[in-house]
Amino acid sequence: MADPAQIVTQLGSQARAAARTLVGTPAARIDAALEAMAKELLAAQADILTANAADVAAAKATDQTAALIDRLTLTPERLVKCAAGLREVARLPHPVGEVLREWTQPNGLRFAKVRVPLGVIGFIYESRPNVTVDAAGLCLKSGSAVILRGGSEALRSNTALAAALARGLAAAGLPAHAVQLVPVADRDIVRLLGEAVGVIDLLIPRGGRGLIEAVVQTARIPVIKHYDGICAVYVDQAADLAIAEKIIVNAKVSRPGVCNAAETLLVHKDIAAKFLPPAGAALLQAGVRLRVDDASRAALGTLNSQHSTLISTAVEADFRTEFLDLILAVKVVDDCAAAIEHITAHGSHHTDTIVTADAATAEQFLAGVDSAVVLWNASTRFNDGHEFGFGAEIGISTDKLHARGPMGLAELTSYKYVVRGSGQVRP
Amino acid sequence: MADPAQIVTQLGSQARAAARTLVGTPAARIDAALEAMAKELLAAQADILTANAADVAAAKATDQTAALIDRLTLTPERLVKCAAGLREVARLPHPVGEVLREWTQPNGLRFAKVRVPLGVIGFIYESRPNVTVDAAGLCLKSGSAVILRGGSEALRSNTALAAALARGLAAAGLPAHAVQLVPVADRDIVRLLGEAVGVIDLLIPRGGRGLIEAVVQTARIPVIKHYDGICAVYVDQAADLAIAEKIIVNAKVSRPGVCNAAETLLVHKDIAAKFLPPAGAALLQAGVRLRVDDASRAALGTLNSQHSTLISTAVEADFRTEFLDLILAVKVVDDCAAAIEHITAHGSHHTDTIVTADAATAEQFLAGVDSAVVLWNASTRFNDGHEFGFGAEIGISTDKLHARGPMGLAELTSYKYVVRGSGQVRP
Repeated sequence: MADPAQIVTQLGSQARAAARTLVGTPAARIDAALEAMAKELLAAQADILTANAADVAAAKATDQTAALIDRLTLTPERLVKCAAGLREVARLPHPVGEVLREWTQPNGLRFAKVRVPLGVIGFIYESRPNVTVDAAGLCLKSGSAVILRGGSEALRSNTALAAALARGLAAAGLPAHAVQLVPVADRDIVRLLGEAVGVIDLLIPRGGRGLIEAVVQTARIPVIKHYDGICAVYVDQAADLAIAEKIIVNAKVSRPGVCNAAETLLVHKDIAAKFLPPAGAALLQAGVRLRVDDASRAALGTLNSQHSTLISTAVEADFRTEFLDLILAVKVVDDCAAAIEHITAHGSHHTDTIVTADAATAEQFLAGVDSAVVLWNASTRFNDGHEFGFGAEIGISTDKLHARGPMGLAELTSYKYVVRGSGQVRP
Repeated sequence: MADPAQIVTQLGSQARAAARTLVGTPAARIDAALEAMAKELLAAQADILTANAADVAAAKATDQTAALIDRLTLTPERLVKCAAGLREVARLPHPVGEVLREWTQPNGLRFAKVRVPLGVIGFIYESRPNVTVDAAGLCLKSGSAVILRGGSEALRSNTALAAALARGLAAAGLPAHAVQLVPVADRDIVRLLGEAVGVIDLLIPRGGRGLIEAVVQTARIPVIKHYDGICAVYVDQAADLAIAEKIIVNAKVSRPGVCNAAETLLVHKDIAAKFLPPAGAALLQAGVRLRVDDASRAALGTLNSQHSTLISTAVEADFRTEFLDLILAVKVVDDCAAAIEHITAHGSHHTDTIVTADAATAEQFLAGVDSAVVLWNASTRFNDGHEFGFGAEIGISTDKLHARGPMGLAELTSYKYVVRGSGQVRP
């Protein structure tokens, strides 16, 4: 096996050369390449599924969890979805070249702020091989070259996928190095990618907290993090309780393993006794286990004895935990200000919702909660690039710099200023 | 002296509390505070100049350069300018609360992308004490608390300035911790600020390359760098030579010590013999020393013997150097493509200009040069927040993430998404 530092150096210089070519590439050819990549992906189905079967067998042999094995597994249907995703990205508007702002100064200089590619993006992720395809498509459409570093457990699958994508690039006359996979599982690679100053313009780690912290610990280049979501739903005194119940059930149950699922339910003290018995019953019915504070327990009334195994007393840590499971921490608060305070102290600035019919209280919450996405009378699950209308997303940033919340194509670009004059000099 | 780690922890928690207060502070009160800070600054003139005199005396005693002592020195006139700067910032529009984009999805959800404060900004800079005032004003106006870490040689001056600013904040009823100065010169502070994960949202180092590299080497929080400018002027075959001469003289001579001054002159081979003799004479006349390649030397003709002490042969490193002095590297190139190639390989992606009357060549240059600011028929010196009409700037970013080029108030903010619904849940 080659030296990891040599591998990263070589991938980096190839990516930079590809990025320079992409700057001058017509938009139509990038879309043609995305189409060709989709075609090659489907043509290579047999190879890809064989490689994937080997990854899955190895994962089973090392006693990986069922959840990991599910994420790792490719099927013909999942491959068709990957290819369809590339074609969807091909149909999206091109971000590069967009004029974000134009103005003229009194001295006659004409200014334009223009969207440009970032250059080279590094993307570090975990077991889902379909992310290889999604990230490749989004980075290419945004005009950047990408270096992909997937999980070691998916290396055979990702290698087969990347080979198909490279054939698609070549078929469209684009540099095959526009999309590169790190071909080894060496753990030093993550550190080396983060040290590639002047080579990689942006590093995006997406996965568990451990992965992201490892990247941040050593990176010297800009990183946009995709940390966990400790998302809250606050049911206000003035909430429509039927809406509130529908929202908390959707936010908790519709897909508990994702970052925009609710982990905390906050309930105004004046409606707790009215809201929690039916809402609690609906949640318990859906298989949710509740971790409740004393006031919530009192409000739940007879549910406590009917579901004694599903309702337990919350500890402080429960309000700081991303369960990613059918577990919900429940707390009664005095008012909207107390809800904001709780979220500020315990949340992860990801996604938080208020349910209320009172517009003034809603605006207090929307202004006071400093999260990437704050909602009024809607499920936390809407923090998602597709639901935002971005067409696609590479992830949901929990950072405040450059990109916050869903990252679509625009968030994968930079800008430059183009200034046109007629001989102006500075006095 | 207290422990540096304790100092940073305390400044950080005070800054976060101040930042929370600033979120709910009406815009008019922030402007009132900026006015009060200007007033207190002028009222404290005697104290500030006394403190500054002590800094200047200490710098002279340790044989600092005349340039450093000039940058360090405050005068009544410079203080008046600082106060006027705060008042100018007070009159600028408030960035926070601006709705950047609004749209409605088919399910009725109404989305708004709204500008919000970053929270806490760390600013690390060198000897000019006036930067203390400028940075404090811009960060406050952008709705963020700031922790200022100036150079040790200016600590007495900065302490007196910060005390006056704090009195202004208090007079307007704002938290005095919205603007804090690190009160010690300990070098560990730079590292500790960069490790303040979850406390400082953005760190901006502005100063020499050594300072910035020291910050990047250890920082775990987002950093926006203000590196050097190796700026080029390319004089095309189709240039108006009078305009070209005016631009290169302005770009090189008007203020050679700043990052947007030109360091490199590239000349199309077909006009070198016509352009370089008069332009070279004008530059030499202005005191510029030329470092020339062979073709430039040939084109300069009789100037070589007339100014043999001012014209020397360029080495490769001269084209990668930010001279910050009356020195210019000169090279003849084959065409616009060669100029782009030279700039890509040698420049610092800061500011580059083409002089030409040919629009197609100009657009080739503007598209092909990946710098924060690219200009056509205008001096590199226009890469400046005031010249852009931003009203003020905290510096010129050489990064591609979040902010590129001049950083005004908008670039010191983040955004969040506010989503208003009527009970929507995700299918």
